[in-house]
Order: sequence, then C-alpha cells, then structure tokens
Amino acid sequence: MKEDRYEVRFSGSGGQGIIMAALVFAEAAGVYDGKHVCQTQSYGPEARGGSSKAEVVISNKIIDYPKAMKLDLLLAMNQASCDAYFSDLKLKGLLVVDSMLVDQLPTNRAVSIPFTQIARKEVGKELVANMVALGAVGYLCQVVSLKSLEAALMAKVPKGTEKMNLNALRAGINAAQKVDLEALPRSVTPEDEEV
Amino acid sequence: MKEDRYEVRFSGSGGQGIIMAALVFAEAAGVYDGKHVCQTQSYGPEARGGSSKAEVVISNKIIDYPKAMKLDLLLAMNQASCDAYFSDLKLKGLLVVDSMLVDQLPTNRAVSIPFTQIARKEVGKELVANMVALGAVGYLCQVVSLKSLEAALMAKVPKGTEKMNLNALRAGINAAQKVDLEALPRSVTPEDEEV
Repeated sequence: MKEDRYEVRFSGSGGQGIIMAALVFAEAAGVYDGKHVCQTQSYGPEARGGSSKAEVVISNKIIDYPKAMKLDLLLAMNQASCDAYFSDLKLKGLLVVDSMLVDQLPTNRAVSIPFTQIARKEVGKELVANMVALGAVGYLCQVVSLKSLEAALMAKVPKGTEKMNLNALRAGINAAQKVDLEALPRSVTPEDEEV
Repeated sequence: MKEDRYEVRFSGSGGQGIIMAALVFAEAAGVYDGKHVCQTQSYGPEARGGSSKAEVVISNKIIDYPKAMKLDLLLAMNQASCDAYFSDLKLKGLLVVDSMLVDQLPTNRAVSIPFTQIARKEVGKELVANMVALGAVGYLCQVVSLKSLEAALMAKVPKGTEKMNLNALRAGINAAQKVDLEALPRSVTPEDEEV
C-alpha cells in the first residue's frame, strides 16, 4: 500500500450482496492481513430506495475517521450507483463496474467486467455476482492478499455455500487478471490528463 | 429518542453472530424507521484474537462521526468483551449480558439474561443466541420499533432460517419485558449514585 489510507466503496442494488462483499474484504484485510480496517454502512432516511452501499477503509495506522472521503476504488454494480458515487473517486482512483448493468461509463479509467454473467455462466448462480466482483476488486486494488480474501470468504459466507462462493471469487480474480491497468488513462477526468 | 445520538456496541466471541445482530439492528433503524444510522466494524492487528464487536450509531440528524464514543448500551456476550468495553459506557448507559457467559458483573446497572440458554431451550438452536440478544436489546433500548426489527431480520438472515431467527428475536423480547429497568441503579458506577 503506497499511501497510508486506502478507501473502497461497494455499491449496487439491495439484494446484490454488497454488504457481504464489503465484510469479507474488510475481514481479509483486518483479521487475516493484520491491517487497521473500518467497515461502515450508512443509512439515511432515503435508504428505502433499494440501493446499497458499504465502505471499507484500510490503513497501516489507526484510523481516525472511518468513513470514506475520497475513494481509491469504486465498485458499481448498477448504473444508479455509478452515477451517484463516481464524483467521490480520487483523480487516480479506479472505477470497477458490472459491464452488463452499467452501460454509461463516466470515465475511461474504468474496468468493466460482466460479473453477473460470469456468476451465472461459470458458477451457475447469479446470486454470487458479488463474490465475482469481490475477486476482481481484490485483485485490482493490490492492498489485500488473495489468500486472505479466500480465508475470510470461507469463514464468512453461510455454511454449505463456501465452495460456490470460492469459485465465484476465483472467477472474478481470473477475469481481472486479463485487464491491462497500464493501458487505462491515468486520471478519471480527461482534463487532468492534459495538465 | 431523548438525545440526538444513541450508541450501541454489540460484542462477544467470533462465531456468535455479533455482526449480523448489529446489521439487523442498523437496518431496522435506518431502512425501516428512517433514522440516520452508521454501522461500523473496526479491526486492528489484534483482530485475530477471536473476539468480535460491531457498533451502531443512530441519530435524528446526519451523523458526522460514525464510531461510538460513549455507549448508551453495551451488549456483552462473553466476559472478555464485558471487561474490555464496560468503561466505554455512559454513566447512565445500560449493560446487557448473557448471564451464563458473563458471571462477573462490573456494575449493578446491568440486565443479565441467559440468551444462549433461551436459544437452545426455546428455539432449539444455540446459534440464534445473537437474535435472542438482539430482541432484548431492541426492547430495552427503546430507539427502534420492534416491527422494524422483525422486518429487517426477515430481509437479512439467510433464506430458510427466517422463522427460527424470528422466534429467537421474539423470545429475547419476551425475556426483556420481564426486566424492571426502574429497579436498577441510575448510574453504572455506584459513587455517582451518592452525588
């Protein structure tokens, strides 16, 4: 981890398992990698809308302020979340989306992977799209070890679903390994490229 | 809610479902009751120890600082958690413990209920002690509606376990209804009684 603080927001629709993905990510970094981690859900009076978000802040030091301020990585599992939270990304942050559910990308600095389709076709269950996405996020962020991610997943998901969720995680890692991050623009806003 | 901010910490051993209880509580207040809610897990390098804690902050206003500072209610599902966190209670805060797992009470301002025993004897499954405790916490704290608590539980627990978890929640509410809060000392530290 280059800087002291790394911030991720997982976002999507209710029922996509957004909070479970964030919990596994947080426990991987906190319990298994031994980092300082805060994992937060915030709900306002608008929370009935059916959208879901969860944040993870990872640090090598004690975390004073646990809410995300400027995101290093935003996972958006639907268009509404992408639109709502894109502006919270750092200039050099990374947008990761489900390519079948987000078709209007606000930046070219984005990784677009068909998480839900992979879950359905490769794992046989759409419900584990969250773990496919988590695998990709885990691989791309480079701040948690993949071994810790697998260990946290095995400990956290409902009994009897471990294998399926693990397969989903690994399918997400595989998909992300094909992405060439170096080929992406360095900044989420094109203007800043020219500075 | 008398004051603007109400803080609860759920604590115990890993595997007791502490985070699930906090998540249901948070969604009841945030999604169903429409309050401002932050729900946080913090992990440090010591997180491997097998203890588990989760916080919920509820407010009528936007929450600036999402971590708990002074607890209105502490649920301790084991002695280690009780010892570690008791000092974070407000003077007029309330300690709630599993009476079979916490035998050394640091204050008389405590509600002691055999959550795990109730889960085993009344619901038939020790694993749902977390929901028995949540029922009691929900009843005692008076900041979430019991209807919302039930709705959040039904939406949040794994499919197929709804009925069992709901029975556990209700058993916890029933147990808490027998507690006479007025009979407790007004303060967690006896010295302050005399002021």
